[in-house]
Amino acid sequence: MEFFTIINIGGTIAFAISGTLAGIRKQLDIFGLLVIAFVTSIGGGTIRDMLIGHLPVRWLLDSSVILLITGTFILTILLKNHIEKIDKTLTLFDSLGLGFFTLRGIQEGLAIQLDMSACIILGTITACFGGLIRDILLNEIPYLLRKEVIYATPCIIGGLCYFLMKQIALPNELIDLLTILIIFGIRILAVKKNISLPRGG
Amino acid sequence: MEFFTIINIGGTIAFAISGTLAGIRKQLDIFGLLVIAFVTSIGGGTIRDMLIGHLPVRWLLDSSVILLITGTFILTILLKNHIEKIDKTLTLFDSLGLGFFTLRGIQEGLAIQLDMSACIILGTITACFGGLIRDILLNEIPYLLRKEVIYATPCIIGGLCYFLMKQIALPNELIDLLTILIIFGIRILAVKKNISLPRGG
Amino acid sequence: MEFFTIINIGGTIAFAISGTLAGIRKQLDIFGLLVIAFVTSIGGGTIRDMLIGHLPVRWLLDSSVILLITGTFILTILLKNHIEKIDKTLTLFDSLGLGFFTLRGIQEGLAIQLDMSACIILGTITACFGGLIRDILLNEIPYLLRKEVIYATPCIIGGLCYFLMKQIALPNELIDLLTILIIFGIRILAVKKNISLPRGG
Repeated sequence: MEFFTIINIGGTIAFAISGTLAGIRKQLDIFGLLVIAFVTSIGGGTIRDMLIGHLPVRWLLDSSVILLITGTFILTILLKNHIEKIDKTLTLFDSLGLGFFTLRGIQEGLAIQLDMSACIILGTITACFGGLIRDILLNEIPYLLRKEVIYATPCIIGGLCYFLMKQIALPNELIDLLTILIIFGIRILAVKKNISLPRGG
Repeated sequence: MEFFTIINIGGTIAFAISGTLAGIRKQLDIFGLLVIAFVTSIGGGTIRDMLIGHLPVRWLLDSSVILLITGTFILTILLKNHIEKIDKTLTLFDSLGLGFFTLRGIQEGLAIQLDMSACIILGTITACFGGLIRDILLNEIPYLLRKEVIYATPCIIGGLCYFLMKQIALPNELIDLLTILIIFGIRILAVKKNISLPRGG
Repeated sequence: MEFFTIINIGGTIAFAISGTLAGIRKQLDIFGLLVIAFVTSIGGGTIRDMLIGHLPVRWLLDSSVILLITGTFILTILLKNHIEKIDKTLTLFDSLGLGFFTLRGIQEGLAIQLDMSACIILGTITACFGGLIRDILLNEIPYLLRKEVIYATPCIIGGLCYFLMKQIALPNELIDLLTILIIFGIRILAVKKNISLPRGG
């Protein structure tokens, strides 16, 4: 299996797990949890595709995504006591997913000739808006808005590095890999050090 | 008038009424209620059309829908004391609407060659996401997530039956009719028996 | 600079400021505020473009909008103590923006041959849905639904006047200007007099 396919699957799984766990804390019923798992996992890419007009959105055309999320969901429900213990593994996948999805959004933007700022925004939306919709549905002020540092900040910095590396003409594969690693690294660091940004007020 | 046109109109009316009544409970002003009536009624189909790229969305092209909802809204405001008494009629229309809108979503999916799981998801979105957006706007954890059994569950089961009946090659009209009746029946039963799904936690 | 360009920029700036200030009140961190500033400013136009299929949405193709909002955001953060004092200037720009964005939505609708009611709805969405999404993200019952009179009502009345003036065949530029002024005027009046609509219940 290709490197990117693995990360993609890992990211999808991690987001599906994190959505399910968030729903359990809010005491949703089984189907409510399934909806939350889906939305967290594919919400960001869906918004991106709706913004750029890449329609029908991808997951409607590819039932393997639907199967992957449903399978992850069922396993999460069955194993939830164990999964809550493996918090570190979750953060790991979640951070890899953040990196991959940001890269994916940037590439989708480049494919339709968008400029740098638009591409970075698309990447950040792809990576972060699934969690944003999850929080809206669960009736909370989105975590994204309160703890940006561990969501949007790594994506934005990673996106800037991506275009910087393009400037110095590194090979494409290396740029992709480094972008994911940068986002992954900042995310892990921010979670570990519990870093937070200054408030605006 | 055709059978499906009647159900379609009935569903639209029922959802417009249920949105208006939900807004009244939250003490919205007149235009706030109108917005909620619209969103509840056409929200699901709008999200579906935005996901599959069927744009501009239908109701922008067909002012009869706008007139129908506005008329229903005005009547609901004027007659609201009576409408709250006719709760059963509302559940009836609401359940018929659920059946029709699910069928409609499935058919839209088939028209663009989506596979079974994608079609059932589209059907469920068409039937349930108007109410979902209504609840988000009214700042509640969506009813869909807490009481799936009377929303998404009938749609998903009805959708599965639809494709099962396709397999055994029943005539199309019969399949359509039975799908609506199955969803309608499960919904009515679930509301009557006050059935609920197990929580995930 | 053209008259409409000025109003457009003024409206974008006003909405970016109002989003930032709303976020500060909710104690978001810096990037959370930036997200809110963007969403408030371009949310309405984005929803409109997604509904009519005008994709990719405009601001993805025009980085000057992104720069304008980011610049406004930075200035708002730096000058926030002063800006809160200049509340009247904000209402002024906000109301001009409301007028301009309504007109813009109507024109986009006419460009794809939508009829009157659909055009007015599009105009209202363009002008009001940025604030609606802002409120959803900040986990409040949208202000739009509670205080419609100072949001949707001026847009709807202005839209009706637009089509009335078309009927009596005034010159296009005059119609555009008068529509903005009517919406602006009603808005300012409603804010000043603290007018509110009757509740539905």
